Amino acid sequence: MVGDVHRRIAREFGTPAVVIDLDVVERNIARVQAACDRAGLANRPHIKTHKIPALAMMQRAAGAKGITCQKLGEAEVMADAGLDDILISYNILGVEKVERLGALRRHVDIAVCADNPTVVDGLPRAAEIAGRPLPVLVECDTGRKRAGVETAAEAVELAGRIAASPGLEFAGFLMYPQETPASWAATQRFLDTALAGLRGGGLAPRIVSTGGTPNLASLGQLAGATEHRAGTYVFNDRMMMACGAATLADCALTVLSTVVSRAGPERGILDAGSKTLTADPGGGLDGYGLVLEHPEARIKAFAEEHGFLDLAACNDRPKVGDLVRVIPNHVCVVVNMVDRLIAVRGSEIVGEMPVAARGRIG
Amino acid sequence: MVGDVHRRIAREFGTPAVVIDLDVVERNIARVQAACDRAGLANRPHIKTHKIPALAMMQRAAGAKGITCQKLGEAEVMADAGLDDILISYNILGVEKVERLGALRRHVDIAVCADNPTVVDGLPRAAEIAGRPLPVLVECDTGRKRAGVETAAEAVELAGRIAASPGLEFAGFLMYPQETPASWAATQRFLDTALAGLRGGGLAPRIVSTGGTPNLASLGQLAGATEHRAGTYVFNDRMMMACGAATLADCALTVLSTVVSRAGPERGILDAGSKTLTADPGGGLDGYGLVLEHPEARIKAFAEEHGFLDLAACNDRPKVGDLVRVIPNHVCVVVNMVDRLIAVRGSEIVGEMPVAARGRIG
Repeated sequence: MVGDVHRRIAREFGTPAVVIDLDVVERNIARVQAACDRAGLANRPHIKTHKIPALAMMQRAAGAKGITCQKLGEAEVMADAGLDDILISYNILGVEKVERLGALRRHVDIAVCADNPTVVDGLPRAAEIAGRPLPVLVECDTGRKRAGVETAAEAVELAGRIAASPGLEFAGFLMYPQETPASWAATQRFLDTALAGLRGGGLAPRIVSTGGTPNLASLGQLAGATEHRAGTYVFNDRMMMACGAATLADCALTVLSTVVSRAGPERGILDAGSKTLTADPGGGLDGYGLVLEHPEARIKAFAEEHGFLDLAACNDRPKVGDLVRVIPNHVCVVVNMVDRLIAVRGSEIVGEMPVAARGRIG
Repeated sequence: MVGDVHRRIAREFGTPAVVIDLDVVERNIARVQAACDRAGLANRPHIKTHKIPALAMMQRAAGAKGITCQKLGEAEVMADAGLDDILISYNILGVEKVERLGALRRHVDIAVCADNPTVVDGLPRAAEIAGRPLPVLVECDTGRKRAGVETAAEAVELAGRIAASPGLEFAGFLMYPQETPASWAATQRFLDTALAGLRGGGLAPRIVSTGGTPNLASLGQLAGATEHRAGTYVFNDRMMMACGAATLADCALTVLSTVVSRAGPERGILDAGSKTLTADPGGGLDGYGLVLEHPEARIKAFAEEHGFLDLAACNDRPKVGDLVRVIPNHVCVVVNMVDRLIAVRGSEIVGEMPVAARGRIG
């Protein structure tokens, strides 16, 4: 059964409500900062998880060197709120984006990534608008097959192209190893080969950045790394628990939901559907969330405002009107669904926190 | 290759941009209104698809009797914009919601649904706040196994409970048959049995409401039906095409996206990821969207701001910087991701339309 604070949230704000516990958030921030400090790496948390300037400020106050954003709209909101030293881990492309980037670069310490010549060739215009150099990192793929050049030779070539472009500064390499020793070893070989290749041209990376909350367990394993970008750790979720990167006590965010229907003995409906919890499968998890009050319940499917509960395995089944808390599969996409989070500290309601950087085009 | 209007949208608004063509929207609205008229049914479009008062006004102007909302927050926004005759096809439950419902009912012609006694027993408080009766429909499940009582006997019992509750008016039955002749036949048996059961108590439904865009093909098949609720038809999507409820020419909404990376010959990355297109599987479709300029491309997976393209089957493969239009699997959840849509009429940009009713808690 949910506690008194959650009944008060339902009474005051209604459900479904996305609730964060700032005490847990602070513990998560402190733990990851300490891990980066121990490894001798700068901490550059990825704010795509929370999109809230006040939380980025807490990460900075705890010792983070700067922040990571995944799109320009996020960086603009963070910069407006006074955050500086921003890395956008994305290819910024197209006249509209390049012009916005240039305007932002005028007054903000910001760097971007590129994994191909077309992106590099568009960026000098941003530096021109800014009136000062733009740092650019080469994004490198070391096995994950998402963004990033696939070979060290391409990385070296692209670094040279950046260095030779008017207004651009080659700033380093951005990497996102998979969560395996083999991938970290491959990342080391990639980096060592790229560094050797750079020497001939007199270039050297100022930044070698790794990423990912699950990869926090591997901090310090990449010789030459200078910083780490983790995002999800600030709240954690069912995926982070599944991979061992978090415990239940580390989960700062729950979706407070009401059981609105119990049309059959083995089924029920939550008022949190795909427009709240999202259909994110969490990398193959069973169901769409963990119901803390009924862990044997399975959120088996969604309508937009319905979360369909399979209660067959539950001895204790919820009644219509019961409140439950759900740990979502993937917390980053859930925060992106709502305009504000409800913040608590243990049993005290702190208030609403606007998700200021959500809803931006690019 | 995308046309000039899409290049201008990218230039002015950036990507990913969610674009609707109002000419297609108007055709869709007129076609479905005509279908309801032909069947002698009132048209009560479900606004959860667009969440935009101006589009609801277009639906009303074309002949819709009223609108359907899936949550109170949507109804509040629509009522504020001047929409009346609103049906919330949902169990409204909990003190916070019941009080908001009562406040709304003071000045708006609004009805709600119930599928269980707990919900019914909470609603008299809303009527009391409103100072006038609240119409309540019994939601009936006729095989879909989502919300709704499972038997006609339960429907009759709940109708009696509503009629006997202070301030509540039994208004009718809400149904959502599956898209099969067998389900429509089962719905007819359910309704006939419920109607027979009601006669003893002197009750009769004022409204018998069916729903769903795919079910537009079955309009007129339920004797006793008075109205139909369809939502998705206003924009349509890949799911509607897959089930035959729409053609490509009926799809009014596309997500304009930029190819930001081509790290390997058989793969590419769009700037529309799970935070734009959503991970909605569209009821088992292959991939997460139809790329109009490269229909052989498969959007095979997402990161939050990355749409991963499998280009193996493409003879003509996109370059970095190319613009493409994506028809999403499920349009209703995509609209819910963004604060505004970009409206066009053919090759003319009309402007931005705020998605006014998104982001509400419940």
